[in-house]
Amino acid sequence: MSASFGEKLKVTVFGQSHSEAMGVVVDGLPAGLRIDIEHMRAFMARRAPGGSPLATARREADEPELVSGVVDGVTCGAPLCILIRNTDVRSRDYDSLRRVPRPAHADWPAYIRFGGHNDIRGGGQFSGRLTAPLCAAGAVALQCLSARGIAVYSHIASIAGIPDTPLDPVSPDTAALEALREKPLPVFDTQAGEAMAKAIRAAAKDGDSVGGVIECVITGLPAGAGEPLYDSVESRLASLLFSIPAVKGVEFGAGFAAASLRGSENNDGYTVSSGRVCTLTNHSGGICGGLTTGMPVVFRAAFKPTPSIAHEQRSVSLPELADTTLTVTGRHDPCVVTRAAPAVEAAAALGIYDLLLCANL
Amino acid sequence: MSASFGEKLKVTVFGQSHSEAMGVVVDGLPAGLRIDIEHMRAFMARRAPGGSPLATARREADEPELVSGVVDGVTCGAPLCILIRNTDVRSRDYDSLRRVPRPAHADWPAYIRFGGHNDIRGGGQFSGRLTAPLCAAGAVALQCLSARGIAVYSHIASIAGIPDTPLDPVSPDTAALEALREKPLPVFDTQAGEAMAKAIRAAAKDGDSVGGVIECVITGLPAGAGEPLYDSVESRLASLLFSIPAVKGVEFGAGFAAASLRGSENNDGYTVSSGRVCTLTNHSGGICGGLTTGMPVVFRAAFKPTPSIAHEQRSVSLPELADTTLTVTGRHDPCVVTRAAPAVEAAAALGIYDLLLCANL
Amino acid sequence: MSASFGEKLKVTVFGQSHSEAMGVVVDGLPAGLRIDIEHMRAFMARRAPGGSPLATARREADEPELVSGVVDGVTCGAPLCILIRNTDVRSRDYDSLRRVPRPAHADWPAYIRFGGHNDIRGGGQFSGRLTAPLCAAGAVALQCLSARGIAVYSHIASIAGIPDTPLDPVSPDTAALEALREKPLPVFDTQAGEAMAKAIRAAAKDGDSVGGVIECVITGLPAGAGEPLYDSVESRLASLLFSIPAVKGVEFGAGFAAASLRGSENNDGYTVSSGRVCTLTNHSGGICGGLTTGMPVVFRAAFKPTPSIAHEQRSVSLPELADTTLTVTGRHDPCVVTRAAPAVEAAAALGIYDLLLCANL
Amino acid sequence: MSASFGEKLKVTVFGQSHSEAMGVVVDGLPAGLRIDIEHMRAFMARRAPGGSPLATARREADEPELVSGVVDGVTCGAPLCILIRNTDVRSRDYDSLRRVPRPAHADWPAYIRFGGHNDIRGGGQFSGRLTAPLCAAGAVALQCLSARGIAVYSHIASIAGIPDTPLDPVSPDTAALEALREKPLPVFDTQAGEAMAKAIRAAAKDGDSVGGVIECVITGLPAGAGEPLYDSVESRLASLLFSIPAVKGVEFGAGFAAASLRGSENNDGYTVSSGRVCTLTNHSGGICGGLTTGMPVVFRAAFKPTPSIAHEQRSVSLPELADTTLTVTGRHDPCVVTRAAPAVEAAAALGIYDLLLCANL
Repeated sequence: MSASFGEKLKVTVFGQSHSEAMGVVVDGLPAGLRIDIEHMRAFMARRAPGGSPLATARREADEPELVSGVVDGVTCGAPLCILIRNTDVRSRDYDSLRRVPRPAHADWPAYIRFGGHNDIRGGGQFSGRLTAPLCAAGAVALQCLSARGIAVYSHIASIAGIPDTPLDPVSPDTAALEALREKPLPVFDTQAGEAMAKAIRAAAKDGDSVGGVIECVITGLPAGAGEPLYDSVESRLASLLFSIPAVKGVEFGAGFAAASLRGSENNDGYTVSSGRVCTLTNHSGGICGGLTTGMPVVFRAAFKPTPSIAHEQRSVSLPELADTTLTVTGRHDPCVVTRAAPAVEAAAALGIYDLLLCANL
Repeated sequence: MSASFGEKLKVTVFGQSHSEAMGVVVDGLPAGLRIDIEHMRAFMARRAPGGSPLATARREADEPELVSGVVDGVTCGAPLCILIRNTDVRSRDYDSLRRVPRPAHADWPAYIRFGGHNDIRGGGQFSGRLTAPLCAAGAVALQCLSARGIAVYSHIASIAGIPDTPLDPVSPDTAALEALREKPLPVFDTQAGEAMAKAIRAAAKDGDSVGGVIECVITGLPAGAGEPLYDSVESRLASLLFSIPAVKGVEFGAGFAAASLRGSENNDGYTVSSGRVCTLTNHSGGICGGLTTGMPVVFRAAFKPTPSIAHEQRSVSLPELADTTLTVTGRHDPCVVTRAAPAVEAAAALGIYDLLLCANL
Repeated sequence: MSASFGEKLKVTVFGQSHSEAMGVVVDGLPAGLRIDIEHMRAFMARRAPGGSPLATARREADEPELVSGVVDGVTCGAPLCILIRNTDVRSRDYDSLRRVPRPAHADWPAYIRFGGHNDIRGGGQFSGRLTAPLCAAGAVALQCLSARGIAVYSHIASIAGIPDTPLDPVSPDTAALEALREKPLPVFDTQAGEAMAKAIRAAAKDGDSVGGVIECVITGLPAGAGEPLYDSVESRLASLLFSIPAVKGVEFGAGFAAASLRGSENNDGYTVSSGRVCTLTNHSGGICGGLTTGMPVVFRAAFKPTPSIAHEQRSVSLPELADTTLTVTGRHDPCVVTRAAPAVEAAAALGIYDLLLCANL
Repeated sequence: MSASFGEKLKVTVFGQSHSEAMGVVVDGLPAGLRIDIEHMRAFMARRAPGGSPLATARREADEPELVSGVVDGVTCGAPLCILIRNTDVRSRDYDSLRRVPRPAHADWPAYIRFGGHNDIRGGGQFSGRLTAPLCAAGAVALQCLSARGIAVYSHIASIAGIPDTPLDPVSPDTAALEALREKPLPVFDTQAGEAMAKAIRAAAKDGDSVGGVIECVITGLPAGAGEPLYDSVESRLASLLFSIPAVKGVEFGAGFAAASLRGSENNDGYTVSSGRVCTLTNHSGGICGGLTTGMPVVFRAAFKPTPSIAHEQRSVSLPELADTTLTVTGRHDPCVVTRAAPAVEAAAALGIYDLLLCANL
């Protein structure tokens, strides 16, 4: 079933862009955990549509309500349900889309899959808004991980082809990464960030959009997490990352670049440092044989450009099965990457925390 | 659990490189299906170690034995179990590895995870040999798909950075792709193939190894397969692909390159062709909103270079927790990519067939 | 995970007796289904605490709110979430129970399991109130089944050892069974019903409680539903029935009585009736080899007496680990059986509908 | 899927009565566990057909072969696969059954479910022989439990309505229960055992069969195992028990009898004994709120009489859809209960061990 994931930490997401509410049920949390609602709000605010010139005009408070699973803010062993009401809904914008599917959106395959009953309003369950409950659950996982000294950081590796400085996979600068969380464009290289902002504004002005890549790192992990074969760290994280709308590529460590290296270049030799087994390099992205090595887990997720653009595009009229054209209206992000970082961190946190629980680590 | 995957078609893999046998249980197959054992053998032969100068010297017949689930070669509704005996086992090669983990192998994290009880012989359950039962199960899925007009093809997109001609994602040349199955190096561009073979031989001569990328296409799919959100086509296929040893990156359609495009470039406009909704381009790789569009599903999987190399490498002696060096002996592939294509096709076939069953398509 | 069940129809229940809200997420429903909210309300009203002299004094509207998964009341393929607010909450009644566990309640094992963090208010997630979201989901399953001509009926087989007339397992009187739904004590035998009511009132007067047995029948099923072995109809239904608080026994067809019969007495011979294969008797309860035979599925679930009684009982003080006594106060049912019928029907409907979907029936 | 169960300890069973082999894959075992193959053989011998006058004439060595998951007999973290070859197969006995289904067998619903492709030989996957791999896996679970001081015992509570002395649910006589394992009819009351044997012989002489009830107890459990709601101890154990062929009823503690008690009679008061919280009685069967209380878990499973009897019975000819009669030939048990005890213990051991792993107990 599409709405659930996780094994020891089971997460079930519900809602559509314009339904009464969205939400998430998290089952398997330890009892006795005080949920830090302020941290959750702050984390969710990083993805919320804020009205900045770089994002959609839709405004949502995205206030999380803990309707079950807690007693006085502390988990009690029952499933945690977090509810998020949809408020700023303008469903009239989407009426014509029922008949003429938007290119690069779910409209056409969802029409076939659900016999035309799919919720077309705001993209329905395929909307990027569904990353709000993901982030709510992710905030809880991040709090659990934080208590064990594990942290998840990310930066924008590139937008519109403009690259940021890559992070150091052996010793990532966690202080710098933490500081990025406050920035509208979380990049190390300020000049690159300005060029990215310029590219986004240029695309927006043209009624167009741009894509980008998020690079993420998980620090503080023990060795041995993950499962051999079909529940490898890569398998589980990739599965979650590819569920974030617009993600079309995922790579770990050296990733695609490793395919051009020789073994003698790519292999990460071992050494003992401060009494702990470490690798000298980290081309494996902290994962060998599907298990964590104890080094930082590093991966990148590629986001395609936002499909909703103001350009006239070729499409078909489904009732007549005839060619036509379409110009998408409504409120859209010229670049989802700027708001995608917390979704990527949430997916990483939920995936890795579940694997830690599975391994009793 | 790491050994099982799939929802309607449940696959459970068991075995280690040097265990008595490896095998796979496939539950959920339709009853009344005649298993084409010759096709299965031929498919598995494409990944079997054959003694070519490009592959390991280990020789295994990899003969599949159907021990349950069939009556006179026809499925009866009970789980199918396919057994593969391990025969050419030389476990003495691996004794020293218990103490000094091989770089870029599972040795170190598996040692931690299983308290030193992990099967180190031939890589144990982390060995590429475990793709043999995957291929046996994949052959059955391919037979089921074939009956519906769905086919899975692949070619080597690159080895050691040497690229083959990419396949046409809108109208792949299926006749050419089918012909590639007979070739030791399945590439469109003969000259590129020669350069790849040369690079592999050069690496082998240096006691080194090279990596590469497999590009795969699934043709004949209906629109609407896959599940929104957490069981998207990308999520399910990526999860399986990342379980193949050495895979470090997966991308669909334009993949990472899409992140540098504008929406107006990347979006695939719709048109009606022969009474059927098609896209004019296929940057999405046949998947929108996690669901199939009815266009070919196209993806690439990046393989790191074989970690087992004859070079002296830095490692640690685990009992003393001290730095040391290691030179890996034994029989190894200088490049796993040449034998990886059927594993990629098997993963794709099993993943997509399960999703078709889930969607009642 | 404890909160979810089902394979093709995945149900996730959340909430506690005194949490802000309870609810249920149902994933896997067909798109295009109009939810009959009036039927849902009527079905849920059968289990709601109503203030009758036979039930608890707690009053809850148990109004179901469909917060996702529908567009204009019609399912859209996204998970359906039904929310039920808890309103008449008096948590002060339960404070002392944190230290002195109530006999036959979950208090003691939950204290151990959740390190004392379990929600003790009203029984927390162990409360019979959690059957309210189960019934909400069950109402949807009943609507789906009804469209296929499948119905679920039940009556009280016994209360306090006073038996009702058993239903006819070959040709149950569905008109009579339907009429029972309106009755506070759903029994065929009016005199037995009066004796049951008297026994309940007598127990209530004594500050005591009584148990009973629900007999349930599912009509209109095709043959062949269920899965061999570990997902047999009996396995799936029993698993759900034993999740209803207070159920301690489940039997199908002749059940425990079959253990005293000879094969020649118990076997149900086949015959052709109206061109359809039927059995002459139905000791198997419509299930052979774990699969439906096409005859009515008949089972019984035994409910222990309500554990909350006004008598002084022996217990222990957990902080001091010393013997003590306890008198339970608060609002409780002298007999849960009268309100349990819809929960049993809901479990049966959800279980059998999922198995039909799994078998593509 | 029907072939798998368990969450942290995932068990997948394959095989048919007359397939080349049967077997079981067990994933999730701790690494470093030495498998006691002699214990496994002895445990499996208790269910093996032995040629006693009380059992079928089929003779099977049921020799378990560990083909994966171990290195030198010690678990290595990879899935354990245990293979059991079928040897004494006489498939000619079953040919006519394809057309005329045996009453109370799976023949008819399996014919419908699998479109006539079901394996009819010896009952196919519905055969009681499939409890052999269950027992093989169960033996491993019993060894794991034994290391924690947890044991599973059973006796025959009744055969043909003749009752044995029930076991003491508060302080079961484990020495007496252990001694029962050596006996062909494991009962406390020797006279009752003689009467049972007589009833079985009388039924066999009449070409008929009898049923019975197994009572089982799990000792040494900690409090707090199990999951609230849908993975309660009762839900999980019942689900497994109902997958054993011929089981038609399951009850825990006082079970159906509890439905006739008052709360004041049924509730188990708490007391402190040797510094440990205990209950004074054990009507709950060691389970409250779905969780273990730390008292012995006690349950009973009712087996219907063996459906294969030599009597002429009414059936239908499926090709002509016409009434006919049938006399079952072949080798059958006049009473499966005598051999069912280890299957019940295996199911209990696998179910409870998985729940302990799930709860990190």
